Amino acid sequence: MKATIERAALLKGLSHVQSVVERRNTIPILSNVLLDAAAGGGLKLMATDLDLQIVETVAAAVDQPGATTVSAHTLFDIVRKLPEGAQVQLSAADGKMLVAAGRARFNLATLPRDDFPVIAEGDLPTQFELPAAMLRQIIDKTRFAISTEETRYYLNGIYLHVAEEGPSGPVLKAAATDGHRLARVTVPAPAGAEAMPGVIVPRKCVAELRKLLDEVDGTVDLSLSATKIRFGLGTAILTSKLIDGTFPDYSRVIPTANDKLLKIDPKSFAQGVDRVATIASEKTRAVKMTLDRDKVVLSVTSPENGTAAEEVPGDYTALGFDIGFNARYLMDILGQIDGDLVEVHLADAAAPTLIRENDKAAALYVLMPMRV
Amino acid sequence: MKATIERAALLKGLSHVQSVVERRNTIPILSNVLLDAAAGGGLKLMATDLDLQIVETVAAAVDQPGATTVSAHTLFDIVRKLPEGAQVQLSAADGKMLVAAGRARFNLATLPRDDFPVIAEGDLPTQFELPAAMLRQIIDKTRFAISTEETRYYLNGIYLHVAEEGPSGPVLKAAATDGHRLARVTVPAPAGAEAMPGVIVPRKCVAELRKLLDEVDGTVDLSLSATKIRFGLGTAILTSKLIDGTFPDYSRVIPTANDKLLKIDPKSFAQGVDRVATIASEKTRAVKMTLDRDKVVLSVTSPENGTAAEEVPGDYTALGFDIGFNARYLMDILGQIDGDLVEVHLADAAAPTLIRENDKAAALYVLMPMRV
Repeated sequence: MKATIERAALLKGLSHVQSVVERRNTIPILSNVLLDAAAGGGLKLMATDLDLQIVETVAAAVDQPGATTVSAHTLFDIVRKLPEGAQVQLSAADGKMLVAAGRARFNLATLPRDDFPVIAEGDLPTQFELPAAMLRQIIDKTRFAISTEETRYYLNGIYLHVAEEGPSGPVLKAAATDGHRLARVTVPAPAGAEAMPGVIVPRKCVAELRKLLDEVDGTVDLSLSATKIRFGLGTAILTSKLIDGTFPDYSRVIPTANDKLLKIDPKSFAQGVDRVATIASEKTRAVKMTLDRDKVVLSVTSPENGTAAEEVPGDYTALGFDIGFNARYLMDILGQIDGDLVEVHLADAAAPTLIRENDKAAALYVLMPMRV
Repeated sequence: MKATIERAALLKGLSHVQSVVERRNTIPILSNVLLDAAAGGGLKLMATDLDLQIVETVAAAVDQPGATTVSAHTLFDIVRKLPEGAQVQLSAADGKMLVAAGRARFNLATLPRDDFPVIAEGDLPTQFELPAAMLRQIIDKTRFAISTEETRYYLNGIYLHVAEEGPSGPVLKAAATDGHRLARVTVPAPAGAEAMPGVIVPRKCVAELRKLLDEVDGTVDLSLSATKIRFGLGTAILTSKLIDGTFPDYSRVIPTANDKLLKIDPKSFAQGVDRVATIASEKTRAVKMTLDRDKVVLSVTSPENGTAAEEVPGDYTALGFDIGFNARYLMDILGQIDGDLVEVHLADAAAPTLIRENDKAAALYVLMPMRV
């Protein structure tokens, strides 16, 4: 293998692939990036953690096609430190790869390309496109609710599924929950998605996908089966195993008969919650909301620190009562509301509360109360 | 106590004092800030860790003079989250302090002001002024060499002392070392400093002082005895105990007869060191320098990663030889050189190496070699 690549292009490609590579690996080759120079020009970079795989193609002048693997983080660090505008020559021979740029020479240890594990995609019968902006929105409005509890592995991702919903045709729904809060986004189902199985996309795939989406405009190609999903984004292809589990029937926890409605400015509401929560104990972060005619009083009582209270005006005409929430969870949701008003649909101090911008909004949130 | 303060002024004052307060304290009152509202107006904020004390005075309208203490980090977090431009009312009574701003109210637990420990400064016979810019330079060019080894507590600070040096009169010297490298800055001794004792200013005092210096122009008032030092910077007064130990006679390790001189661009030298060190093992970070006529070849050999080499041009006419350095230490020193040339005075592979911009430079560095 012998190829010459512009430093900036190689750095960008490596920055994508190296973040898939785990810092500690018991299997040495998983620390490596596969470099594959094609006869027609172009260098393919590939990394995997056995569950998630990324392939990125960068422009390169190829003198001699071939492939090898070297430490992804080391190569990334080297290329990062090379001067801007440098031309990087890669040449592999005799179990070593020479990286040359300017007056610097690195002779790196390699592992054989044939040992590099590749995720077998199998057949991916469902194929559709989503605008990159829509995929960004789906992720941003749901990922914060993904569970980190490893014992509930089936909640460690975003659940994507298609549902028939009335005359406007099928919709694509993305949902995430950790049992304390639920986030769901609904968008029109793209052509080709109608028959897709419900799939759970793992948290790490979501994180890498979201990083790549920052650099993509236009559309993203999705292909999936019941066990694998592939995202095509410009020069990058991200392939992930799906979580092998059953996502709970979350629609049952979405309240439909909450009869008390608070309409409030999400920004001043969130700021008030943040302020009174300053003195809340680190563990519970519980904030009490006292609802009264056209106002909410937020309050916290802490045995160590004292008390805090703040009144926030809002539209409220139902019966006054008290309810408690985890301040962090409430702020996470309020931070997702773009408009000047948010609807908080309440029932009683023990019932799930529904939060949304309005009944036209793509996103909907459910928050479980806490005893205060 | 009853006082009203503009949020921005209170926040700035609290940001200075809260950083002296340790996150974990076995003595509860050390978590607190002392707030002292004077009859004539103005609020004094004070914090201490028993070794270092800061007092900052902020403008305030005082309705009722008095003093109390509340959690420094909690008050800081509250004020940080208040809206910009808010007027903050503080009123203490019955073991509580009320913080009121806009629609928010906080009732904070207090501890009695009389329990708040104050560092007894005693007599500080040596008094002089230093330009803030000079004090910044003294700190920046030496602090990286301060030892973090707690067993060598007498190296855990910057040693300040005055020396007679030839016809141009006495000089003030600041030195720091961890046994592997030494940094020393020499400036003309300011009037009043001639008779000062040699003192070791602790690392934490240096760090807090440096932060405060970012916001100060003009001069800083220094007052000191053999056991305490006080810095007056505008509205802030920082008082610290000095390290009770003997700083080693470091002048003996500064080589005077190194006969091999390398003159080189510090920037490309440092970049070369940084690049080849990418593959060095985390522990030693050893880089080999091979000196030859008008060039240096930097190289690293790593059993896991392979080899790296880079040639850097420089003026060198003495006998060629090899010497090794810790890459991190070498880069720390090269990063302090402002000009386009640095002088590296070498003797042999085992001898301390002297590094300085030139013989007029205020700063001088000594670096011990490593076996490579």
